[in-house]
Amino acid sequence: MRIKCIVTYDGTHFYGWQIQPDKRTVQEEIQKAIYKITHEEVTIHSSGRTDAGVHAVGQVFHFDINKEIPEKQWIRALNNFLPDDIYIKDSFIVDESFHARYSAKKKEYRYLVSTKPYNPIERLYVYQHNRPLDIEAMRECAQIFLGEHDFASFCVFNGLGDTIRVIQTIDIQEEDGIVTMRFVGNGFRRYMVRLISGALIQVGSHWRTKEFVEDLLNSKGKKKCLFKAKPEGLYLQEVYYEEDD
Amino acid sequence: MRIKCIVTYDGTHFYGWQIQPDKRTVQEEIQKAIYKITHEEVTIHSSGRTDAGVHAVGQVFHFDINKEIPEKQWIRALNNFLPDDIYIKDSFIVDESFHARYSAKKKEYRYLVSTKPYNPIERLYVYQHNRPLDIEAMRECAQIFLGEHDFASFCVFNGLGDTIRVIQTIDIQEEDGIVTMRFVGNGFRRYMVRLISGALIQVGSHWRTKEFVEDLLNSKGKKKCLFKAKPEGLYLQEVYYEEDD
Repeated sequence: MRIKCIVTYDGTHFYGWQIQPDKRTVQEEIQKAIYKITHEEVTIHSSGRTDAGVHAVGQVFHFDINKEIPEKQWIRALNNFLPDDIYIKDSFIVDESFHARYSAKKKEYRYLVSTKPYNPIERLYVYQHNRPLDIEAMRECAQIFLGEHDFASFCVFNGLGDTIRVIQTIDIQEEDGIVTMRFVGNGFRRYMVRLISGALIQVGSHWRTKEFVEDLLNSKGKKKCLFKAKPEGLYLQEVYYEEDD
Repeated sequence: MRIKCIVTYDGTHFYGWQIQPDKRTVQEEIQKAIYKITHEEVTIHSSGRTDAGVHAVGQVFHFDINKEIPEKQWIRALNNFLPDDIYIKDSFIVDESFHARYSAKKKEYRYLVSTKPYNPIERLYVYQHNRPLDIEAMRECAQIFLGEHDFASFCVFNGLGDTIRVIQTIDIQEEDGIVTMRFVGNGFRRYMVRLISGALIQVGSHWRTKEFVEDLLNSKGKKKCLFKAKPEGLYLQEVYYEEDD
C-alpha cells in the first residue's frame, strides 16, 4: 500500500533532504526509521528536495510498503524512531496514483528576515539582515514575479526540464521586526525562492532598483541573479494537492 | 577602568555561563575575546550564572581593564571575536562601585512552554510540553510565590547564603500556543525559576493541585519540589540596577 506523510524538520543539522554518502540527510533518517518498523528497505519520494539548512513545516513524502499498519499509527511509529529534529505530523493511506512530487498542484515557501539587531537566539531560523527594509518597495518589486515567467535568471538550470513557472502569490508582511515573504506557486526550481528573496532584500535595502531586478527576469537567464538569500531563513511551508486548496 | 556589557546568547551549545575545564562556556568565550582585543587576562563577573542550555536575552557582566577603548567600541570589538551564538548588545564605562552581581536590584526571567504539537524547529527554544495548560489554574497557583518566602523547597541549597527571596511579579500569558511565564524578583537561586516553572506546569496540566505546591513551599525545604522544567525554555531576560526600573 502507499503511505503519504506530512513531516516538519529543523534543517540546521542536515545536508538537505536528499540522500548523499556520508552525510546526514532527512531522507536517510526517515528511510532508516521505516526500516526499523517494517524491515523493508524502501525509497521515499518527497514533493521536492530542500537544501542544507533549509527548514520544512509541511514537507510531504510517500512510499510503498507491504507491512499493514493502520493509517494513523505511522505517526507514532515513525516519530518513535526519528531523531528530535524531524517530526511526522500526519499520515494517510493513499491511492497508488498519488505521487508526492507529480501530484502536487501548488507549493508554499516562506522566507524570514530580521530587521532588528543581530539575535543569536534566532540566527538559525531567521536570516539576520539586521537592517531596515522598505516593505513597500519590496511589495512593488514582487509584482514583477507574479504570473507565468521564464525564471532562468532566478534558478540553477541543470539541463533537465524547463525554467517556466507560475507564481500566484508573493505576500510580504513585517511584524515585530521580522519580515515574512510568503511565496505560492505551481513549482519552484532549485534556489529559486532564495534568489527571488535575495533580490527583494536588495530592493528593500535600496541597494538595487525594481528596474534592475526586472531586467534580470526579462533576460531569461542571460543575466543571472547573484543575490542568493541564506538557507536558514527558508521554510517549505505547505504542499497543496488540490487545485482549490 | 570598569566596563559593563549587556550580552545575549543561545545557551544550546554551552555548558552554561561559568568556566569549567574542557567545556565550552560563555564566560570563557568572552574572556578569550577580551584577551584578543587587549592582551590582558581578565576575569569577567556576571549578574549570575546560567546553566547548560539556558538562554540569555540580557545577561550583564563587568570587568576591569587597563586598555583605553571608547565606551561603545567594545560592542564591535567583542562581537568581532565572539562566536555567532554570543552577541554583545551594549557596553558602558561604569564607576568602580558597580558590580554586575552585587549591584543588581531585580532580575527578570522568562520560561516558554509550548501547548501545540511537538515542533522540531522550536525544540531548543521553547519547552515542548505539547499538551494544553490551564492558564487560570497556573495564575492562581503563582500567587502563592509572590512576596518574601523561604524558597528552600524550590532551589538547590549549597550551604552558602540563604534561600529567602522576594518575587514581585509572576505574569502568565498564552499566545499562539506558547505560554510565557515572566518572573521578576530580587534574586533567584540555582534552579529556582525552573522548579517554580515545573510546579506551575504540573498545576496547569492538572497533575498537581495548588494546595500540593503550597505545602511544598511552606515546608521550607523539608519537602523538595521534584519538577525541574527543562533548560531550553528558560531565558535570563533582563537585570535591573535601579530600584525604580
